[in-house]
Amino acid sequence: MEQGGKAALGWAARDASGHLSPYSFSRRVQGDGDVTIQVLFCGLCHTDLHVIKNEWGNAMYPVVPGHEVVGVVTDIGAGVTKFKAGETVGVGYFVDSCRTCETCRTGHESYCPQLVPTSNGVDLHDGATTQGGFSDAIIVSQDYVVRVPETLPLAGAAPLLCAGVTVFSPMVQYGLNSPGKHLGVVGLGGLGHVAVKFGKAFGMTVTVISTSPSKRQEAVEQLGADAFLVSRDAEQMKAAAATMDGVIDTVSAGHPVAPLLELLKPMGQMVLVGVPAKPLEVPAFSLIAGGKRVAGSAGGGVGECQAMLDFAAEHGIVADVEVVGMEYVNTAIERLERNDVRYRFVVDVAGSKLGVDDA
Amino acid sequence: MEQGGKAALGWAARDASGHLSPYSFSRRVQGDGDVTIQVLFCGLCHTDLHVIKNEWGNAMYPVVPGHEVVGVVTDIGAGVTKFKAGETVGVGYFVDSCRTCETCRTGHESYCPQLVPTSNGVDLHDGATTQGGFSDAIIVSQDYVVRVPETLPLAGAAPLLCAGVTVFSPMVQYGLNSPGKHLGVVGLGGLGHVAVKFGKAFGMTVTVISTSPSKRQEAVEQLGADAFLVSRDAEQMKAAAATMDGVIDTVSAGHPVAPLLELLKPMGQMVLVGVPAKPLEVPAFSLIAGGKRVAGSAGGGVGECQAMLDFAAEHGIVADVEVVGMEYVNTAIERLERNDVRYRFVVDVAGSKLGVDDA
Repeated sequence: MEQGGKAALGWAARDASGHLSPYSFSRRVQGDGDVTIQVLFCGLCHTDLHVIKNEWGNAMYPVVPGHEVVGVVTDIGAGVTKFKAGETVGVGYFVDSCRTCETCRTGHESYCPQLVPTSNGVDLHDGATTQGGFSDAIIVSQDYVVRVPETLPLAGAAPLLCAGVTVFSPMVQYGLNSPGKHLGVVGLGGLGHVAVKFGKAFGMTVTVISTSPSKRQEAVEQLGADAFLVSRDAEQMKAAAATMDGVIDTVSAGHPVAPLLELLKPMGQMVLVGVPAKPLEVPAFSLIAGGKRVAGSAGGGVGECQAMLDFAAEHGIVADVEVVGMEYVNTAIERLERNDVRYRFVVDVAGSKLGVDDA
Repeated sequence: MEQGGKAALGWAARDASGHLSPYSFSRRVQGDGDVTIQVLFCGLCHTDLHVIKNEWGNAMYPVVPGHEVVGVVTDIGAGVTKFKAGETVGVGYFVDSCRTCETCRTGHESYCPQLVPTSNGVDLHDGATTQGGFSDAIIVSQDYVVRVPETLPLAGAAPLLCAGVTVFSPMVQYGLNSPGKHLGVVGLGGLGHVAVKFGKAFGMTVTVISTSPSKRQEAVEQLGADAFLVSRDAEQMKAAAATMDGVIDTVSAGHPVAPLLELLKPMGQMVLVGVPAKPLEVPAFSLIAGGKRVAGSAGGGVGECQAMLDFAAEHGIVADVEVVGMEYVNTAIERLERNDVRYRFVVDVAGSKLGVDDA
C-alpha cells in the first residue's frame, strides 16, 4: 500500500498481456469536495482493453481498469452538497477536468485537454495514476459524479455511464432525438444496441446497419428496430439511399463510410463514435453535394450524463448485460475481444472476492 | 434557332475541348413568373471548366457556361411581384428547384435533388438544356433571382453570386460569423479570398493557410488576414494547433486534411467547399478525440444569397476581379486552369460583341 490515503483492493493489469489479478493500493484521502463510493457494478468497455494491453502506448502499470461504475455513497467530504451517504451514484469515463476551459465551461468536459480518465489518468490532486472501477471503492469529486435514478436496475445501468452517454450526447447535440426522424445505427454492440433503444425512446424510426445478416432478428425483434440493412448488400443500401436524417456509426473495425453517407438525406448528419485505426476514406463530393456532415464524438459531459440517466429511467432503458464475477474477468476480456457478448459484460464487483486468493 | 422563345446570342462549347465560340439559340418564352434579364457581367468559375470540358461526363453540347450573372431587368411576366424593369439583379448557380422538398422548404435549395443548374441543366418548363450567363439575356423565375444592392460595383459583385454565397452560407450556418472567433481559410483563390473578406467583416480573426509562402503578402496586406500559415511547414502548423473555431477549405487539389483538423479547437468545425477528386483521408481519432466536425457545403439558398449580397454591400465587399471581353474568354479559361488570376475573371458581357464574327 502507498503512503497515506485509503486502502483499496482492485484487479489490475501489470503488463501488456492485460491479464488482471488482485492488487492492493491506496486511494487519495477524501477531500472536502469528494465522495467516497463503494463500487457495486462496473462495466467492461473496449477502451479498457486498449488501455490494459497498452495498445495506445500510454499504460501506467499497474492499471485497474473500469469506467462504467455504479455504486453507493459511503462517505462525503465536508464541502459536498450534491450527494449524501447511502445514495446510488455513477462515475463514467473521467473523474476530473480543468474546469476552466471553454469545453468545461459549456458542459462538454469530455473534450477538456486536461481530462483525467477514471483509469490510467493522472490525478490532478497528487499526480498519482488514477485507478478504475474494478475495485472495492473509488473517491471522486462530487462534480464528476452522477445520480443513478432509483428505478434503474443497477447492473444494466453501469454501461450507460460510458456506452450510454457516448451515443446519447451526439444524438441530442445533433438533433437526432426528434420524433419522426429516421436514424441509422451502424453496428450492434455495446454502443449500438443502446443507440437503438434511445432512438426508439425518442420516437424515431431506427434502422440498424450491420455486416452480419444474422443480427436482423435481435435488432428488430429484441431491440425494436424498425428495419435492418446488410451493409454489404448494395441493392438494400441503394434502396435506402437518402432516407436518413442521421447515422451513428459505432464500428471500430475498418469499414467503408462512403456507402453510409449515401444513406443520409441532404444536410444529414453522420456521427462517428467508433474509432477505426486506419483513416476513413471520405469522398469530398459525397459530403459537398448534399451539404452533409460528419462529426466525431467522445463520451459526453457530466450534465449530459445525468440527463441521459434520467431519460433512461423515464423510458426504462438499460444496457443488455451479462453479469459476471471478478474471477471471470479475464475470460470476459477474451470473449469481448472476439465480440462474444450480448452486449456488455458487467462485473458484480461488490459480490466478488477481490483480495489475494490463497489458492 | 430553336422553335418559339426568345432569340439569344451566347458563347458555347461544342465539345470536350471546351473552346467557346458564338452561338445563336433561343430562350424559353417569358412566363408569368419570369424575369428577363439583360446580362451585364458574368464570372468564370472552375465549375464552368468542369462542365464545358465534360469532366463530369454530363455535358449536353452546345453548352453556354456562366452562373455568376449580374444584369438588369428588361421585362417581367404578369405575375412578377418581386422585381421591375430597370432593376439590377443577379442569378447564381441554379435557376430552379422542386420547391416542395425539405431543403427547398427550408431555404436550402442548393441541395434540392431536382436542382436545375443555370448552365447545362434541364429546364423543368420545357426539358431544354439551360444555357448560362455568357449570353446577352437570360430568363429566370423571379424566385431564383436576387437583388444586387445599388452600391455594389457590378463586375466585382458577379462572383459573389457563386463564390461568395458558397463561402458565406456555411460560415453563417456553422456559426463562423461571430466577432472574436478564429477562422482558418485554406487556399487563396476565387472562394478563399472572399472568405477572408467576409471573415474580417464578421469581426473574426482570420488566418490564411496555403502551400505557397508567396501568398503571405497578398493575404495579409491586401486582403487583411491577421496571420498566414504555410501548410507544409510542420512547425508553423503545430504552433497554431487547437487555436481555430473553424476552418473553411477551398482547395480542389488533393491535399491532406488531418493537419487541418489539428488546427481546430475542441468541437471545432471544418467546412469543405473545394472538391478534390480523390477521397479525403480522415483519421477517425482526429475527429472523435476533440468532438470535431467536417461538413461539405455547396452553394447556398436564394435567401442566403440575398443576405450575402446585402451584407457585402453593407461592408463594401466585392471579389477582386480581372474584367475581360468575351473575345478573351478562351484565354481566360486557359489562365484559370493554371490559377493565373487574382482572383476571378469576369466577362463584360454587355460590352462584348457576342455575334458570329465575319472574320
